[in-house]
Amino acid sequence: MNTNELIKLLNDYKNNNIDQEEVVNYIKTAPFKNIDFAKVDTHRHLRQGFSEAVYCPGKTPEQIIDIMKELKKYHSIVLSTRANKKTAAAVLKEISEAKYVKEAKIIQWGEYPAQQSSNYALVITAGTADIPVATEAIITIKANGVCVKHIFDCGIAGAHRLFSHIDIIQKASVIVVAAGMEGALASLVGGISSCPVIAIPTSKGYGANFNGLTPLLAMLNSCTSCVATVNIDNGYGAGTIASLIVKQSKD
Amino acid sequence: MNTNELIKLLNDYKNNNIDQEEVVNYIKTAPFKNIDFAKVDTHRHLRQGFSEAVYCPGKTPEQIIDIMKELKKYHSIVLSTRANKKTAAAVLKEISEAKYVKEAKIIQWGEYPAQQSSNYALVITAGTADIPVATEAIITIKANGVCVKHIFDCGIAGAHRLFSHIDIIQKASVIVVAAGMEGALASLVGGISSCPVIAIPTSKGYGANFNGLTPLLAMLNSCTSCVATVNIDNGYGAGTIASLIVKQSKD
Amino acid sequence: MNTNELIKLLNDYKNNNIDQEEVVNYIKTAPFKNIDFAKVDTHRHLRQGFSEAVYCPGKTPEQIIDIMKELKKYHSIVLSTRANKKTAAAVLKEISEAKYVKEAKIIQWGEYPAQQSSNYALVITAGTADIPVATEAIITIKANGVCVKHIFDCGIAGAHRLFSHIDIIQKASVIVVAAGMEGALASLVGGISSCPVIAIPTSKGYGANFNGLTPLLAMLNSCTSCVATVNIDNGYGAGTIASLIVKQSKD
Amino acid sequence: MNTNELIKLLNDYKNNNIDQEEVVNYIKTAPFKNIDFAKVDTHRHLRQGFSEAVYCPGKTPEQIIDIMKELKKYHSIVLSTRANKKTAAAVLKEISEAKYVKEAKIIQWGEYPAQQSSNYALVITAGTADIPVATEAIITIKANGVCVKHIFDCGIAGAHRLFSHIDIIQKASVIVVAAGMEGALASLVGGISSCPVIAIPTSKGYGANFNGLTPLLAMLNSCTSCVATVNIDNGYGAGTIASLIVKQSKD
Amino acid sequence: MNTNELIKLLNDYKNNNIDQEEVVNYIKTAPFKNIDFAKVDTHRHLRQGFSEAVYCPGKTPEQIIDIMKELKKYHSIVLSTRANKKTAAAVLKEISEAKYVKEAKIIQWGEYPAQQSSNYALVITAGTADIPVATEAIITIKANGVCVKHIFDCGIAGAHRLFSHIDIIQKASVIVVAAGMEGALASLVGGISSCPVIAIPTSKGYGANFNGLTPLLAMLNSCTSCVATVNIDNGYGAGTIASLIVKQSKD
Amino acid sequence: MNTNELIKLLNDYKNNNIDQEEVVNYIKTAPFKNIDFAKVDTHRHLRQGFSEAVYCPGKTPEQIIDIMKELKKYHSIVLSTRANKKTAAAVLKEISEAKYVKEAKIIQWGEYPAQQSSNYALVITAGTADIPVATEAIITIKANGVCVKHIFDCGIAGAHRLFSHIDIIQKASVIVVAAGMEGALASLVGGISSCPVIAIPTSKGYGANFNGLTPLLAMLNSCTSCVATVNIDNGYGAGTIASLIVKQSKD
Amino acid sequence: MNTNELIKLLNDYKNNNIDQEEVVNYIKTAPFKNIDFAKVDTHRHLRQGFSEAVYCPGKTPEQIIDIMKELKKYHSIVLSTRANKKTAAAVLKEISEAKYVKEAKIIQWGEYPAQQSSNYALVITAGTADIPVATEAIITIKANGVCVKHIFDCGIAGAHRLFSHIDIIQKASVIVVAAGMEGALASLVGGISSCPVIAIPTSKGYGANFNGLTPLLAMLNSCTSCVATVNIDNGYGAGTIASLIVKQSKD
Amino acid sequence: MNTNELIKLLNDYKNNNIDQEEVVNYIKTAPFKNIDFAKVDTHRHLRQGFSEAVYCPGKTPEQIIDIMKELKKYHSIVLSTRANKKTAAAVLKEISEAKYVKEAKIIQWGEYPAQQSSNYALVITAGTADIPVATEAIITIKANGVCVKHIFDCGIAGAHRLFSHIDIIQKASVIVVAAGMEGALASLVGGISSCPVIAIPTSKGYGANFNGLTPLLAMLNSCTSCVATVNIDNGYGAGTIASLIVKQSKD
Repeated sequence: MNTNELIKLLNDYKNNNIDQEEVVNYIKTAPFKNIDFAKVDTHRHLRQGFSEAVYCPGKTPEQIIDIMKELKKYHSIVLSTRANKKTAAAVLKEISEAKYVKEAKIIQWGEYPAQQSSNYALVITAGTADIPVATEAIITIKANGVCVKHIFDCGIAGAHRLFSHIDIIQKASVIVVAAGMEGALASLVGGISSCPVIAIPTSKGYGANFNGLTPLLAMLNSCTSCVATVNIDNGYGAGTIASLIVKQSKD
Repeated sequence: MNTNELIKLLNDYKNNNIDQEEVVNYIKTAPFKNIDFAKVDTHRHLRQGFSEAVYCPGKTPEQIIDIMKELKKYHSIVLSTRANKKTAAAVLKEISEAKYVKEAKIIQWGEYPAQQSSNYALVITAGTADIPVATEAIITIKANGVCVKHIFDCGIAGAHRLFSHIDIIQKASVIVVAAGMEGALASLVGGISSCPVIAIPTSKGYGANFNGLTPLLAMLNSCTSCVATVNIDNGYGAGTIASLIVKQSKD
Repeated sequence: MNTNELIKLLNDYKNNNIDQEEVVNYIKTAPFKNIDFAKVDTHRHLRQGFSEAVYCPGKTPEQIIDIMKELKKYHSIVLSTRANKKTAAAVLKEISEAKYVKEAKIIQWGEYPAQQSSNYALVITAGTADIPVATEAIITIKANGVCVKHIFDCGIAGAHRLFSHIDIIQKASVIVVAAGMEGALASLVGGISSCPVIAIPTSKGYGANFNGLTPLLAMLNSCTSCVATVNIDNGYGAGTIASLIVKQSKD
Repeated sequence: MNTNELIKLLNDYKNNNIDQEEVVNYIKTAPFKNIDFAKVDTHRHLRQGFSEAVYCPGKTPEQIIDIMKELKKYHSIVLSTRANKKTAAAVLKEISEAKYVKEAKIIQWGEYPAQQSSNYALVITAGTADIPVATEAIITIKANGVCVKHIFDCGIAGAHRLFSHIDIIQKASVIVVAAGMEGALASLVGGISSCPVIAIPTSKGYGANFNGLTPLLAMLNSCTSCVATVNIDNGYGAGTIASLIVKQSKD
Repeated sequence: MNTNELIKLLNDYKNNNIDQEEVVNYIKTAPFKNIDFAKVDTHRHLRQGFSEAVYCPGKTPEQIIDIMKELKKYHSIVLSTRANKKTAAAVLKEISEAKYVKEAKIIQWGEYPAQQSSNYALVITAGTADIPVATEAIITIKANGVCVKHIFDCGIAGAHRLFSHIDIIQKASVIVVAAGMEGALASLVGGISSCPVIAIPTSKGYGANFNGLTPLLAMLNSCTSCVATVNIDNGYGAGTIASLIVKQSKD
Repeated sequence: MNTNELIKLLNDYKNNNIDQEEVVNYIKTAPFKNIDFAKVDTHRHLRQGFSEAVYCPGKTPEQIIDIMKELKKYHSIVLSTRANKKTAAAVLKEISEAKYVKEAKIIQWGEYPAQQSSNYALVITAGTADIPVATEAIITIKANGVCVKHIFDCGIAGAHRLFSHIDIIQKASVIVVAAGMEGALASLVGGISSCPVIAIPTSKGYGANFNGLTPLLAMLNSCTSCVATVNIDNGYGAGTIASLIVKQSKD
Repeated sequence: MNTNELIKLLNDYKNNNIDQEEVVNYIKTAPFKNIDFAKVDTHRHLRQGFSEAVYCPGKTPEQIIDIMKELKKYHSIVLSTRANKKTAAAVLKEISEAKYVKEAKIIQWGEYPAQQSSNYALVITAGTADIPVATEAIITIKANGVCVKHIFDCGIAGAHRLFSHIDIIQKASVIVVAAGMEGALASLVGGISSCPVIAIPTSKGYGANFNGLTPLLAMLNSCTSCVATVNIDNGYGAGTIASLIVKQSKD
Repeated sequence: MNTNELIKLLNDYKNNNIDQEEVVNYIKTAPFKNIDFAKVDTHRHLRQGFSEAVYCPGKTPEQIIDIMKELKKYHSIVLSTRANKKTAAAVLKEISEAKYVKEAKIIQWGEYPAQQSSNYALVITAGTADIPVATEAIITIKANGVCVKHIFDCGIAGAHRLFSHIDIIQKASVIVVAAGMEGALASLVGGISSCPVIAIPTSKGYGANFNGLTPLLAMLNSCTSCVATVNIDNGYGAGTIASLIVKQSKD
């Protein structure tokens, strides 16, 4: 409710177009509309084609189904992330149009929206084991109607593999780097690109890797200043941020 | 050196316009030019107006002075970050045109470039004590020729202070949030904005804050999916990423 | 045994109402009564309607059954917490009147005592996944004869959901907040309420959440000064403290 | 602004007692009043006699002075916590009526309000070295108009010292326990009292104490279920919660 | 080989009682005998009745069987610790005289030696869940021919239970305290006893207990100066040290 | 107060040798005497020649002086530990007979008691830098009237230095090992001795030593089962335990 | 492509032995050849007999099979490390000539190359439980055509077992030490050898061992300066480094 | 003392060339000679030109002087590491021929020995701030008579700087990499070299760098398998290992 709408409301009231109870009620519930909060959150997504995701762990299949159905009313595509096989089976039994992308642990309901621009996000992984996390990011980006490219398995131990893709790296609007072990790839990519780099530490590694703590710390300490980091294995978060950046980028 | 330049080089050589030693030398040193690496790094900055910064800790004033002078040849503005008072004094004695922004611990040499767009980055702090880190980000953004606005001291304990600025929040191209203590402000801002949020945990707090570890962890675990995080107190990094995002944003 | 009782005992002895052996014995065992310790602990609970709970992990079903039976002699209701399904089945086989609240992992034997006051504790969760921990707190509060209300799933990413319940928040005698992820909800609630807030970090999250360490640290560092914290997932402890506060509150 | 006030406003407007601009303005700024947020925060404190504190670290003396003066308009007493000697001297130079309680690092401006009840908070320390933190809590409680008693230096190594004070322990409305080293005192006190216990781990200790981490963890893991914990050395927070509990307690 | 033995050896050689090859060989292998190292280790145990234990994790049943058989040649009793059920079954199939004490996860082969003295070690646990670790200590002590007494389940939340055993506590030659949660019992016991206290943190607890890290840190920071600590759940180590202390104690 | 004393008291009362107020008072304060707690703590020290120490950090010189004077009434020797130079100077100004052992940071008032036995504690250090901590232990042991020997600077990098002292090692009643760096010396000593070993991790080292955390963890994980550990740099605690062990050892 | 090759290429082009497209193509792809990077990595291994290994975790059996087949074209022996039983079975079904060394979790395809020198690496373990990690190192070393010897189970608790092997220790070109618990063996070995020592902390231990963190820290802090450390349980890495050192060593 | 020497000793004794006391004494002290331990340690250094270093922290200048003088009897060059300015001044006052290399914090007494081979160690730093640690390694290598080259300031943010030195990298016998921040340089260097890489994490960085913990973890988790790691800032250790590797390398 902007100022003009408020003035109109007051005029309507003064002119007896609406009665006092209605205007009192409207203003009492207005705060959240006024501060553009609850409803707008939903509207923005519908309007901009953003997908809303359901984080599955700790929810029962019934809860997931209910939330997905509610979201599907407003969105052309709904994602449920980190769903294990058993949960996915229970959900798909009820929502037969949905599909389960096992590698990314995502339940996807609805088709990807059309891409509005040739700008693209680039997703790079250090190793083969980081591909599942990268795939979560890729699906998230596509679900936001954004173009995405990828380069897999070009870790720092064979850096030349990375350099052979210098063109696709230099033209990206944003780069998502998923790496476990020592997580050095994010710094290397940051050093040869001119766009924001979103780093995802993955939990791949052993011993003093501490389930992704090492690449997390390494990425946070990157000596290249265009790297920002998300939580360990958080492909969905990185995909969301990457989508936001690409969508607002100039062609 | 692109393909056309290479063909020209070979033709020149075949036509005896250049001698063999020259072409051998050129190709031997070319790889790094070919892969658009070393030199381009510099050129890109000049071309795009990006500033390069000198990280002062561990460098002598002499080293800082030499690097600043070298960088100043290519850039209209040069920043040296995290300079303490003593170092700054030694540098300013030699480079009298520079100035020291004590609050941000930055030595600034040269004027801010003109802003090319009305798009802006927004820098928000949770408390008064986070302002120095925020200022490092703000100067970095300005040095990149990007417009920046700020809202200081609107932490989660009095969230209404934040909501009264909903307009400026909703229209930003990127938001930088600097917060210490429990670092919850980044999540709150992320929940009411539609642009990328770059979170800077600050080292403000005591006890189980562990010099910024607590807000760092909190920001990495944000339940709002548009938040990416930089190192503790890393205003320069957040400012750089924010600049990149704003510069490539549509008007 | 207070001073008056002691004087009476001594008079009885001097007047030969009780013999020396009895008085010696009484005084020898008295210290713990005198300092109001062992026995009184039990009496206080009976007198005040407090329930005593059995913490199941590390105990055999036989041990749990024995302790529950002993406690049931003195209490109208006995709770055994953190009982897994297998343990619960073994206990219920022996104590058929008890029931197992699976979500909260509580074996409950006996009915809730009547509530003495309309003062209430309010239990709020950030997400759906925090409900089991919240339920442990709720049952504990009810078992103490205290009124409890709840608001589930109003995390900081959609803070407006919280604000729509401002009335129930402002009138609570104590608020228990259960949150995982970054645990920011406790601070937000603390900023809009005027009663003590007991924060329960939950182990919900992944990666750098470290099984609840992140919300634990965030809650301990809350910038709102009316928040005190219990152990990760400790619904029973938070429920006990909340009960104590409500019970001693003015109507 | 409650419903009645809103109805009156609308009537005033309809009856031309106030003009449209005024009512638009009022409603636009109202949300935070409506949700009982910003202003009420201040009113509540004034109404209930709560003191608001200034956390000094990271603020300049000028900033502290300005905030204290602003707060003093609404409060009879203003506290600034964790002020070092130098800061305190600068503040007292400007605000000569204030005084500096060096042990507690508090700048106190104004007298303690009268106590409304004989209910009291009890502050207990394990050792002599914990007294400064305890004093911060005590001053905070007094500034809230609440009665406070204390027992110092009765750590677990000589538990009998504690038991000799059993009367004052049993009658408290809330107990604040400040302990460093292994922090066991909170559990011991919790075992012999029937009120909420707020535990403050202090940073007193060495080696594997890790500046208070050990007592913090110990207090969070207390086997007595009526203990809630605040941040290391957080006397102000514990004092605030304790005050809230005592103030709402029945006589 | 002491000096006298060496002189005898040399005399024997000079007197042609032994030939040169034998004396060369003897002296070449002697170093470890000379420095009282390898063989003596075994002799000492035989002579003093000490049992040697096999730590099972990481060993195959075959390896455990072989080592036990070898040790059984020199010892009247052999213990294998931390054996799971499957391993124990495989060992007992081969060594039918051995028995498996499931609670303590010990395979015991041979009878306890007779006790030489009425001096005793006292083993105390905070809770029921600590009994398995305590039992490992108790069996170890008995296997060393030392008298052992125990008090189970007298944690700090009901300290009076401990005080009722003051006699047995005061007369012990050494006390072993096993406690999880916050581990405060060791300090409390240390405060009321006059013998060395060996503290075993147990892994019992949850959340911020971190599998025994909290009681470990608490015990290391004990404010009573007669407490030394062993590794988490290390009943065998505590039992060994306790045995050494009792065995060398005066009657 | 034992049973006989209690019977006598009751008889005295019945026979009017003492009046009722006196007997009531006596019994009310008796519990702590009955359970042999407060006073006995003091008596035991006097009787057995144990010294009580004042831990200086966090205490003012005035507090230290008062406590030392109080303790001196009951003890022939009083130690104040971890006193820095400034504190020591202030104390010695008031207590001129005391002396300051700078290396061990101990203020010592009174002479060492005579040694009752030739049994001895042996204190070993890995390096020169561990000597101050070892000295704290040595003075503590001497102050308890126990004989002490030492071997300094025989770390694991030159293990032969240790083996050349095998005799003195084998005959000790207890060995205290102080080591920083990787703390391996405790295990090595444990492997060649037959008495209890008390390990003190010292804070000597750098980098991943983490101020003594590394030797602390190493000592707790010792593969020799006769090692128990005290807090980092805790020479006083190790000395106290060692004294207790030697004092109760057979000649 | 070295300078001579480049000159030849240019001459060939000038002399029309190769056409322009070919030379352009060659130079465009050359950079990685020029900097001796991608291809050379492979060539070096073929030429020097180094084996390349496949790290199995996170890869599907199909991916492992494909990579092994590709590598087998260039190498006489291919190792796949950390393969569990199920993965190994799937791989062996497809590659029947390969074999699975269960203890070391290695799939080995092809025979060890002949050893070129009598120089040897020595692999030592502290205990029986460290043998699997040691075996991974041993197979890696053999696969590199290097001679390897081993000494198992000579931990610091019985150091004499180590000293009896002094000859084989002193003559090694490099020593790999695998140890869990407190990891002290690396320091002890380093003190009696004159070659580089590569330390592998193993995850063997419990409680405060933290899955190998303790021996990792201990080895990093070794007081013997010839010890370098690899990741916890990283037998493959230690084996690779050891091979490199032996292969370049003088006979 | 080898077998032949022992036979000769016995013959001498039998032939009365030496008396019994002498032979007893000799054999009694022999073990450490026999096992090639104490003395050989010294001899090896003399024979091979290795320098022994004094670690200064925790030693008084007097102790340092005494040890240096003792070592100087056997070595042509003696280094004392981590000496601060004050200590160095005190030492140089007594040992005037020594010099203080301030950048590396080394006191150097004596000239570098001549280099026996053209094989060299290569020391690389990521940044300017890592040069002091690198210099400690370089001086250590030179003091061992080994040739050393260096490349400074070629961190991963500008990887092309590294590649331009590919020749010197490929021909090194060992490479020492000193890096702070995220420590990624070690992995990058490991990927393009064929010799062992010794990684030194430096304490350069801030925030979540944790004084070198981040590069330490990153280096331990390097995905290139020829990297071994030393303690944070341990230039001396890395230099020693590098020297050992180069010295035993083939020309």
